Amino acid sequence: MPASPIRKLVPYAEKAKQKGIKVYHLNIGQPDIETPALELDAVRHSNFKILEYSHSAGNESYRRKLVGYYQKQQIAIDYTNILITTGGSEAILFAMMSCMDEGDEIITPEPFYANYNGFAVEAGVKVVPIPSSIESGFSLPPIEAFEQKITSRTKAILICNPNNPTGYLYSREELEILKEIVKRHNLFLFSDEAYREFCYTGEHFSAMRLDGIEENVILLDTISKRYSSCGARIGAMITKNKQVVETALKFAQARLSPPGFGQIAGEAALDLPDNYFDATKAEYKLRRDTLVKRLNNIPGVFCPNPGGAFYAMAKLPVDDSDKFCQWILESFSYNNQTVMMAPGTGFYGTPGLGKNEVRFAYVLNVDDINKAMDCLEKALEEYNK
Amino acid sequence: MPASPIRKLVPYAEKAKQKGIKVYHLNIGQPDIETPALELDAVRHSNFKILEYSHSAGNESYRRKLVGYYQKQQIAIDYTNILITTGGSEAILFAMMSCMDEGDEIITPEPFYANYNGFAVEAGVKVVPIPSSIESGFSLPPIEAFEQKITSRTKAILICNPNNPTGYLYSREELEILKEIVKRHNLFLFSDEAYREFCYTGEHFSAMRLDGIEENVILLDTISKRYSSCGARIGAMITKNKQVVETALKFAQARLSPPGFGQIAGEAALDLPDNYFDATKAEYKLRRDTLVKRLNNIPGVFCPNPGGAFYAMAKLPVDDSDKFCQWILESFSYNNQTVMMAPGTGFYGTPGLGKNEVRFAYVLNVDDINKAMDCLEKALEEYNK
Repeated sequence: MPASPIRKLVPYAEKAKQKGIKVYHLNIGQPDIETPALELDAVRHSNFKILEYSHSAGNESYRRKLVGYYQKQQIAIDYTNILITTGGSEAILFAMMSCMDEGDEIITPEPFYANYNGFAVEAGVKVVPIPSSIESGFSLPPIEAFEQKITSRTKAILICNPNNPTGYLYSREELEILKEIVKRHNLFLFSDEAYREFCYTGEHFSAMRLDGIEENVILLDTISKRYSSCGARIGAMITKNKQVVETALKFAQARLSPPGFGQIAGEAALDLPDNYFDATKAEYKLRRDTLVKRLNNIPGVFCPNPGGAFYAMAKLPVDDSDKFCQWILESFSYNNQTVMMAPGTGFYGTPGLGKNEVRFAYVLNVDDINKAMDCLEKALEEYNK
Repeated sequence: MPASPIRKLVPYAEKAKQKGIKVYHLNIGQPDIETPALELDAVRHSNFKILEYSHSAGNESYRRKLVGYYQKQQIAIDYTNILITTGGSEAILFAMMSCMDEGDEIITPEPFYANYNGFAVEAGVKVVPIPSSIESGFSLPPIEAFEQKITSRTKAILICNPNNPTGYLYSREELEILKEIVKRHNLFLFSDEAYREFCYTGEHFSAMRLDGIEENVILLDTISKRYSSCGARIGAMITKNKQVVETALKFAQARLSPPGFGQIAGEAALDLPDNYFDATKAEYKLRRDTLVKRLNNIPGVFCPNPGGAFYAMAKLPVDDSDKFCQWILESFSYNNQTVMMAPGTGFYGTPGLGKNEVRFAYVLNVDDINKAMDCLEKALEEYNK
C-alpha cells in the first residue's frame, strides 16, 4: 500500500512549525470556505433520540431529494440509481469492487488523484496510466493512447472532471471521444465529479449526460468540496446500471450504513439557494487568477490556467520536486514563513514523470496565496544557487 | 460478494407490513436503547464553522481520551496504538488488509458474524471456519480443531467476544488457550469486542490483556452498541504492533478521515459516569432471561443461555430455517403479528450447518419479546402440521 503523497511531508511541516515558522498549506484540498450554516444547523437542531443505522444505501429521503439536485445538473436519474457512500472515497472503492475482478485494469489519464492507487490496491485491480502533458494544459490524451493500452483485462476508464490534481475541465467533445472508446470496447466509464460546481472557463458536462452508454457510466460524487463538508464523509455512487447498484449494495450492507449526522447535513445542503455557489466560485476564481499569474511570473515556472476545481499543477525549475518540497519545509524560510506543496511524482503512475512538477491547492485567501508565492519565488532563487 | 443474511428477508417483512401485519424485528442488532443525551448534545452544541477532515487516524483529543477508557478495562495502551475507524466494520477490514496478503487464511469459530465474509472478500482473504456446537453453548472449539486447520497460509485467528451471533462469552482460560496457538504458529489474534460492556454471567477478559503476544493482538472495537450509536459510524483498530498501525494508517489516509460529527459524539460519550452501563445491562439481562426461558419452553426448541452481547442462537424444530423465516413473514400471522429472525445458515461457513438454527437479537422490550414468542410458538405448531 503506497503512502499518500499529499500527507507524507507532514512531519517536515510539523518540525517547521515547531521552529516557529508559519507554513502556508497549499498541499491539501481542505477548503477554508465556511460550511453553510443551514447545513450545520440541521445537525445541531436534530431531535432524534437514537442514532440508528440508516438504510445501507442511505436515507431514502436524502436519495429522493438528491434526484432534484441532479435534475438541475441535467442528469436524469431516480433515487434507486443512488447509493449514499462514506465520502467520495467509498464511492470510488465500491465502483472498482463492483465492476472489476481481481487483476482487471482501469485506464486513467495521469497525473491523477493519488488515492486512486490506494483504492486500486484495496480492490486488487491495476491502474494503467496514460500521460497527459502540462504543455497541452493536461487535456485528454489522444484516442490512440487509450487504444494502445486496452487489453483483455481492461474493464474501465476513470476520469476526474474537473480534474484533481490538474484542474483541467474536460470539454463535451472530449467526453464524446471517451464515449466512443467505452462503446467500442464495452468498458465502464467512472467519472469522478467532486468539483462539478467549480468551473471557471466553461460549463461542466457530466458523463451521465452521454447518450447511449447509460449502462456503462458510474458517477462518483461527494459533498466534501461542494459544500466545504469534508468531515461529513458523505458521497454517492450513481449509475443507471441496476446490476452494479445491486452488487455495490452488498458491499454497502457489509459496512452497514453511511454516517447518520453527515446524511442530515447533506440533505439539508440541498435547500441552499441556487446562487449559493456564486460567491464561492468567484472567490476560487480570484485565487486561481492570483496563483496562476504569480506562478507564471516566476522565472522558469510554467502553470497552465486550470478550468476548474481548486488545483493547479506547475512545472518548477528544480531537479526533483520531492526534494524541493521537503527542502522548502526543512531548510528554508522567508520572513519566517514557508509553503507546503504536493510533489508531482505522487500523482503519476509512470516512474520518472512529474519530477519537476508540484500541485497547488488554492484553498487559502488571496493575501495568503501572495505571501506563499513570495516564499516560493525566494526559495527557487536560493535552491538553484 | 455474498448478500447479508440479516437483511435478505427485508422484502418479505416489507410485504407483511403492507398487509397491515406488525413485525417484531428480532433479526438485527439495532438497539432500541436511547443514545446518551450527553453524547448527542455534544454534537448539537458544537460550534465550529468548517466541517473539516480530521487526522486520518482520528482526532488526537479523542484518541488520547480513549486511553483512559481502556485503562478502566485494564487495557494498557497509549494513543498512538489507536486508529479511529468508520465503524467497527472498517476496523475489521483494516486489520485484514494490513496483516494479511491476498489468499491468506483467517480461522474463526462458526457460527460467526456474517459480514466477516464480506470483509474477507474485499480483502481477498479466506475465512476458514471451525464449528462450535449449540450443545456446548458455542464454547471455544478444542485446540486440536484449530491445529488441524492451520496451513502455511494461515495468518490470523478471529474471535468475537462476547460473540455475535451466539452471545457466548469466552473465559480467560479459553483466551489463554488461544494465546498458546497464536504463539506457537506466530499468528495474529483479531478480537472483536464490540459487546464488551454487555456480559451477564462473568467478567469480560480482553485479548489485549494476554501477556506475551502484545505484537499479535489486534483489538476491533466500536461505539455502535456500547452507546447505542450505530449511526455514528465510529470504531477503532487498536494494537501495540507499530508496523500494523503504520500500514493501517495508509489505508486510513486513502479514505482521508473518519466522520467528524461521530468523533465528537464518541469523545463526549467518554464523559458518561461509570454506572452508565448498569441500567442498560440490567435491561438486556432481563430480556435475555425472558427470551431464553420462553424459547426453551417451546417444544422442540433449544437455546443455550448466552453470557453476553444481545444475541441468542436457538435450534428450532424445523427442516430449514431459511424457509421457515421466510414463511413466518410471508404466510403466517397471529393476532395480526409476526416475527422476523435471522436464519442460522448465514452465520456458518460450512455448508449444511445451522439449517435448523436461527439468531435472535433481543433489542426489543420484554413485552414485545413475549408477544414475538407467542407468535413463534403458534407458528411452529402451524408450520409443522
